[in-house]
Amino acid sequence: MLYSRLFGKTKKSTKTYDSVNATYLQKGGFIDQVMAGTYTYLTLGLRVLNKIEQIIREEMNTIGNEILMPSITPIANWEKTGRFKTVDVLMKTTPANIFAKAKNDTEYVLNPTHEEVVTPLAQKFILSYKDFPFALYHIQTKFRNEPRVKSGLLRGREFRMKDLYSFHTSDQDLKKYYEKSKEVYMRVFERLGIGKDTVIALASGGSFTDDYSHEFQTLCETGEDTLFYEKKSNIYYNKEVAPSQAPAVKNPDKEKLPRKDVEGKGIIGVEELAEFLKIPVEKTTKTLIFETDDNRVIAAAVRGGYDINEDKLRKAVKCKALKLASAETVKKVTGAEVGYAGILNLPKEVEVYIDESVGGRLNFETGANLSHFHSINVNFDRDLPAPGKFYDIKVAKEGDFDPKTKEKYQVFRASEVGNIFPLYTKFTEAFDYKFIDQDGKEKPIYMGCYGIGPSRIMGIIVEKYHDAKGIVWPATVAPFQIHLIGLDMKDRTISSKAHKVYKVLKENNIEVLFDDREEASAGEKFADADLIGIPIRLVVSKRTGDQIEYKQRTEKQTRLLSLDAIMKNL
Amino acid sequence: MLYSRLFGKTKKSTKTYDSVNATYLQKGGFIDQVMAGTYTYLTLGLRVLNKIEQIIREEMNTIGNEILMPSITPIANWEKTGRFKTVDVLMKTTPANIFAKAKNDTEYVLNPTHEEVVTPLAQKFILSYKDFPFALYHIQTKFRNEPRVKSGLLRGREFRMKDLYSFHTSDQDLKKYYEKSKEVYMRVFERLGIGKDTVIALASGGSFTDDYSHEFQTLCETGEDTLFYEKKSNIYYNKEVAPSQAPAVKNPDKEKLPRKDVEGKGIIGVEELAEFLKIPVEKTTKTLIFETDDNRVIAAAVRGGYDINEDKLRKAVKCKALKLASAETVKKVTGAEVGYAGILNLPKEVEVYIDESVGGRLNFETGANLSHFHSINVNFDRDLPAPGKFYDIKVAKEGDFDPKTKEKYQVFRASEVGNIFPLYTKFTEAFDYKFIDQDGKEKPIYMGCYGIGPSRIMGIIVEKYHDAKGIVWPATVAPFQIHLIGLDMKDRTISSKAHKVYKVLKENNIEVLFDDREEASAGEKFADADLIGIPIRLVVSKRTGDQIEYKQRTEKQTRLLSLDAIMKNL
Repeated sequence: MLYSRLFGKTKKSTKTYDSVNATYLQKGGFIDQVMAGTYTYLTLGLRVLNKIEQIIREEMNTIGNEILMPSITPIANWEKTGRFKTVDVLMKTTPANIFAKAKNDTEYVLNPTHEEVVTPLAQKFILSYKDFPFALYHIQTKFRNEPRVKSGLLRGREFRMKDLYSFHTSDQDLKKYYEKSKEVYMRVFERLGIGKDTVIALASGGSFTDDYSHEFQTLCETGEDTLFYEKKSNIYYNKEVAPSQAPAVKNPDKEKLPRKDVEGKGIIGVEELAEFLKIPVEKTTKTLIFETDDNRVIAAAVRGGYDINEDKLRKAVKCKALKLASAETVKKVTGAEVGYAGILNLPKEVEVYIDESVGGRLNFETGANLSHFHSINVNFDRDLPAPGKFYDIKVAKEGDFDPKTKEKYQVFRASEVGNIFPLYTKFTEAFDYKFIDQDGKEKPIYMGCYGIGPSRIMGIIVEKYHDAKGIVWPATVAPFQIHLIGLDMKDRTISSKAHKVYKVLKENNIEVLFDDREEASAGEKFADADLIGIPIRLVVSKRTGDQIEYKQRTEKQTRLLSLDAIMKNL
Repeated sequence: MLYSRLFGKTKKSTKTYDSVNATYLQKGGFIDQVMAGTYTYLTLGLRVLNKIEQIIREEMNTIGNEILMPSITPIANWEKTGRFKTVDVLMKTTPANIFAKAKNDTEYVLNPTHEEVVTPLAQKFILSYKDFPFALYHIQTKFRNEPRVKSGLLRGREFRMKDLYSFHTSDQDLKKYYEKSKEVYMRVFERLGIGKDTVIALASGGSFTDDYSHEFQTLCETGEDTLFYEKKSNIYYNKEVAPSQAPAVKNPDKEKLPRKDVEGKGIIGVEELAEFLKIPVEKTTKTLIFETDDNRVIAAAVRGGYDINEDKLRKAVKCKALKLASAETVKKVTGAEVGYAGILNLPKEVEVYIDESVGGRLNFETGANLSHFHSINVNFDRDLPAPGKFYDIKVAKEGDFDPKTKEKYQVFRASEVGNIFPLYTKFTEAFDYKFIDQDGKEKPIYMGCYGIGPSRIMGIIVEKYHDAKGIVWPATVAPFQIHLIGLDMKDRTISSKAHKVYKVLKENNIEVLFDDREEASAGEKFADADLIGIPIRLVVSKRTGDQIEYKQRTEKQTRLLSLDAIMKNL
C-alpha cells in the first residue's frame, strides 16, 4: 500500500491520552475516536484487528463451529433469564423519532453477550445425546452501557468480541472441554505474541456458582487488574477472589489496657481516626452494616487499612445479594449514626462476620455504636466474646499471605485478554433446553462460555510492546511486514528504484507499506516508521546505492543488503 | 469440513416461507431466523456471506480505503444534518433497565447509514486540495427500524452493508468518480455471478436534488422492484421515476355529450365507480388534494387506473414536502367531503396539476366537488378551461410510453443489488467541511455515496439461482467447491477410501464439505446435496469401485472418474 494514499496518516500533535495505547494508536493513524469508548478503525488499525481475529478464528475452528448471531434480539429472550431487568450494562433500541415510532414501535435488546441467543438457537437444532458435545462461536461487535470508558481500546461501549459457547451432557464433559479450551486459548495468545507473559488466573464465577471462572491475564505494568501469585501452589488469583491472611501486627502489645470511649465527631476514615487517636492504623477496625436479599442484617469487620470484599462476604453469609444498609437501619441496629458502627454490644438479630485480620491484636479500636464515639483498647474475651470463627471477607492487599500455604503473595499488574466461565445449567434451564439421552429420558444440558476481545487485545499488545518512539508490533499482528521508505523521491532514479523494490515485494505477496511521499523529510519518515511499528524497515535513498538499508524495529543497527539477500531473509 | 460435525444441518420440514431464499436458506441450514428480519448466519451461510464480502472488498480496494466505523454514535451528529428527527427507519439506544440507567443515561444513534460519521471523520484528516479525491468504505452491520420485514434476507432490521463515501473538490470530479464506480460495481456483480442480468436503472436522487441516483438491479422474476426499459435510448427506469405517457383511450368518443351530475354516495374506488356509472375506467378521473410544506393547496388529477406519483408531483409543484390534505382542508377547498373532489369549479387559491393521461378524452368523469356527486360527460373548453399545461405526475404502468421517444416500455421485475447517490454538498455543508484550494481559499466539498448489501445479495442470488430441488450457487460464492458424499460408510473399505479422497482434496486447498454420516440414506444425502447447492458433487460408494462419481449441480448426467482426473479438472 502506498502511504501517500493511505487515509489516516500519523498525527504530529503532542497530545497524549489516558493510556499508551490510546496515544500511539491515535497518533499512528490506527484508530480515531468517535466518542468516548467508540472508535473508527482506520485502514492500519483494521488490518491489525483483522489479523488478530483471523488467528483467533483459526484456533477456535479446532474446537467449534463459526456462526454469526445478530446484535439486536427480542426482549423476551432476556426476560426468560431474568437478565433484562438486572444487567446494568444492557442497552435496548427504541425508535429515534415520532416518524420511526409510527412505523415500528418495538424495542430490541442490543446484545452485550449472547447466551440469550445461542441457547434457543442450539435448542432448535440439537437434542439427541449423539450430537453432543458441540460448540458455537462468533466474532462480532458487542455493546455495553459503560459509564466510564477509558484506556483507549481496553474498555469500550462498542467493541469486538469472540464468544464461544459449548454444550454438554454432563458436568464432567463440560470440565474436560473447559480444560481443552485453556490449551487452545494459550495457543491463541502465543500466536498473538503475548503467550509468554499470559497466565491463567482464578476469578469470580459469578453469582450462580461457588466455582471460579478463569481469566487469561497478560502481565503488563499498565494493566488494570492485580494478580496475587502463590508460588507453592503455582496459582494466580485475581485480586477480587484471592484468599488472604493479613500479616501480623508489627509491634504487638504485651498486656490489655483499660478500655476507653473517646469522643471524635466526624472522624471517620481510618487514617484520620488513627492520627486522632494516636494509634497505628492497624489497630483500628472498620465495621460496615449490610442488608441481604433475605432480609438479614449483617455486621462485617476488617482491620483498618483493608476493604470488605462483598463477593467473599456474600459467600460467607450465604445469600444471593447484599447491599450497604440504609442510614435508618444502621441507626436502628447500632443505636448510632453512620460512621460509628463497631462490633461491641450489637443486638442479637445482627449477624457478625469478623475478618481474621481483626484477630491477633490486643487493645484495638472499634466504633462504639454510640454517635461520635470510638472505643479504644478493646479486647476479645473481656469487652466482647471472642468470635467462634474468623472469616476471610477482605480485599487482598500486597503483603498478604495465602491462608493455606502461609506463603506471601507476589503481586503483579496485568490486563485480561480472555475469560472462560462454566455456566452449568443456568441458561439451559431458563430456556428449558434438555437433551434426550440413550434411555429416552430428558436430561439437563451443561454449558460453558469462552470470551476473547480482539479490539481489547489490540490495545493490550500496544501497552506491552512499545518504546519511547512508538509501537513495536509482533510480526503476526503487524499491519504490514515491511515498511519501505523512499528518500530523495524527487530524484527519478531513486524513485524508480524504490518503486521497483515495492513491486518485487508485492509480487512475492509480502505485505508492504511504501512511504512514497515526495515532500516528507527523512526525519519525518523515520519517526513515522517508528511510531507505526512495522517489524522491518527498508530504506532506498541516494546513500544506499545499489543496496537497501535493512533495520528491524526491535534493533538499533542497520545493515546494507541487496534486494536478493532481503528476499531470501523474508 | 465434516458434515456430521456441522452445526445447522438441513431440515426435513415441508414448511415454506414467504420467499424462495427464506425457504431454501433456512431448510438448507444456511440461516436461522431469530425474529422477523433478523437472522443468525449458520456456518454454511457465513461462508457464503464472507465470500460475497471478500469479492466486494477486493473491488472496493481499487477505488477506496477500507476502514471500520462504529454502529453507535452521538445523537449530536444526526442533529447537525437534521436527520435525527426525520429519518423514519432510525433507531437509538437507551439503557435497558433502572440499573443501566443509573450507570449511564446517554442515548446513542444506531446507524442505518454513515454519512453522519464519515463526514466529520474525513474532516479531521483531509483538508488540502492536494489530498483529493479520496474515498472511504466499510463493510459492517446496519440497523433499520423496518415496520414490515419479509422475503428472507432481502429486507431486514439488521443486515450487512458495504457503504463507500467519496469526497471531491468539484462537481465534475464527483461525476468522473461516479462513472468509474459504476464500472467497479459491475465487476463486483460479474464476479458474484449476477453480472449478465444486472442493469443500471435511474432512481430517485432523494429530496435534495433533481438528479437521478442509480440503482444496480438484477432482473429476477421474484424481484420486488419494477423496471421500465426504453429500447431506443437504452435506459432502465425504476418505476418510481419512469417518465410516462398513458396510451390513448381505446374507443374515443366522437362528440361531446351533455354534462350530468350523478348522485353516488360512498362510491369511491374507480373500478366501483366505473361500474356504477356504466363507463370504462379510463373515462374516470382521480383527483387528490395535497398540502405543501410552504402552505399551498394542490389538486392533482390522473386518469382512472393510475396513481399519483408524489415524487413527480413534488417536483412539478416545486416544494420540499407534501402530504395528503386533511379532511377539513378538502372540505374547505372543494366544498365536498373527501371522495368527491374533482377538477371542476375549484377556488382560485388551489393550484391544479393535471396529468397528461387526463387529456385526450371526451366526455370524462370527475368528482363534482359536491358531496356524493360525480360529474360525467365533462369536457375541457366547455365545462372547464383546458389546462395551459399537462404534467407527468403519475406512477408509470405497464403499457405506458416514454414521452420523449414515444416508444412503449418493456417492463421487468428486478431486485436491487446496489445503489449510488450523488450527495453533492448536502452533508459537507451540514458539517461545514470545506477544503483549502491552491489559492488558499475555503471551497465546498462534493460527496457521493455507494452502497451494496452483501446479505441482501445472498438472498437475491438464491432467488435467481435455484431449481425445484434447491439452491444452485455460482462457484464464486458457494460455501464449498466440492460436496463429497460417502455412501455405505459403515463399510470400512469404502469409508477409508472416502476419507482418503477428503484428505487429498483438503491437502490441495480445495474447499470440501464431506457428508460422512453413517446413518443417512443415499437418498437423503443426494437430496441434501441438491438443497445445499455446492457446484460439484462427488460420490464414493461400493458401486463406484476404484473411481469416483462426478456430477455438476447444474447438470443431470454423472461421470465416473479417477481421483487424478478429478484433481486435474479442478
